[in-house]
Amino acid sequence: MTQDETPEDIEARHKAKMQKHKAAVDQRIAKADTDTGVLLVMTGPGKGKSSSGFGMVARALGHGMRVGVVQFIKGAIATGEERFYRRFPEEVAYHVTGEGFTWETQNRARDVERAEAGWEIARGLLRDPEVGLVLLDELNIVLSHDYLDTATVLADIAARPTHQHVVVTGRGAPQALIEMAHTVSEVKVVKHAFKQGIRAQPGLEF
Amino acid sequence: MTQDETPEDIEARHKAKMQKHKAAVDQRIAKADTDTGVLLVMTGPGKGKSSSGFGMVARALGHGMRVGVVQFIKGAIATGEERFYRRFPEEVAYHVTGEGFTWETQNRARDVERAEAGWEIARGLLRDPEVGLVLLDELNIVLSHDYLDTATVLADIAARPTHQHVVVTGRGAPQALIEMAHTVSEVKVVKHAFKQGIRAQPGLEF
Repeated sequence: MTQDETPEDIEARHKAKMQKHKAAVDQRIAKADTDTGVLLVMTGPGKGKSSSGFGMVARALGHGMRVGVVQFIKGAIATGEERFYRRFPEEVAYHVTGEGFTWETQNRARDVERAEAGWEIARGLLRDPEVGLVLLDELNIVLSHDYLDTATVLADIAARPTHQHVVVTGRGAPQALIEMAHTVSEVKVVKHAFKQGIRAQPGLEF
Repeated sequence: MTQDETPEDIEARHKAKMQKHKAAVDQRIAKADTDTGVLLVMTGPGKGKSSSGFGMVARALGHGMRVGVVQFIKGAIATGEERFYRRFPEEVAYHVTGEGFTWETQNRARDVERAEAGWEIARGLLRDPEVGLVLLDELNIVLSHDYLDTATVLADIAARPTHQHVVVTGRGAPQALIEMAHTVSEVKVVKHAFKQGIRAQPGLEF
């Protein structure tokens, strides 16, 4: 903006810029004309991966879809998301299969057993054409610890109904999953409240 | 793992590693003993920022909190999250104040007017001690276009009840907001379905 610009000039400049931007956006949108179930991976060390998955659960429910949730890792505290989504048993099949963080259980054989039981449930959801979205929360953790065979997991995901969306969360997503996915976001930490002495807060972190 | 290791060796090694890890985690947790309303910012170009905010809405509701949502930018399509959360008018105050993306409206004066009206609503939520979490969806976009005065916005956020959580989403978070926030995540694009010709899908993108 220069000092000589009138409000009308600013408005005209804004409009011209936005028209150009709209033309570019419209062109890109016209090129993307395929509908399909999407495989989305939220990975990286930053906050917001699981919550993002739980936001997509809300979205899917708003579109009248049925949703399946499998939580592979879970702390001792009952989470708000579990308490909330269990209100809708007709719409959300909610499963918690983990017993806690790997450093809490300290028992690899038991962790593997729980992961395998969790995958049996996930496979059932991935075979059900009535389920529009499957959230596999913290599955990346389980895969990066080799608690499940990644090739088997990917084959089951690939064999799902074509319209079904799958969201996988957790740090350390395996490379083969990243290659297979349509959309992958990496969440970076810019800063975190925990480092400032603030403990995990209900409503935000669990 | 070496070839000579027995299953018992593997289990013992895992347990020792996890015990050490647990000790470190426990020490960090003991240091973080403050409870406070958290200001969280989800920014960056990647997918998952708004959905993360909407997942925290579910979390907060699961803890019995009341929640306020203000959506500052909104496309022409009705979103799943809006349809879903409007089911709970006693628990969620849901406001959509924008009329569409900046390149759709092509009218700066009108965008500014709508942003200001949106901020009046946000300010009301930020002054209400009954509201446990306020989601200011796409506020960063509005701030980076200078549709609102960042200093005024930050002052209103700073003046909120101490226990209230605020989540701000959108790419291009202003530096002053990042400095003030407790937790900031930057979501990077590793890959995106749109670039592979897949249009925005209900349940995932809206």
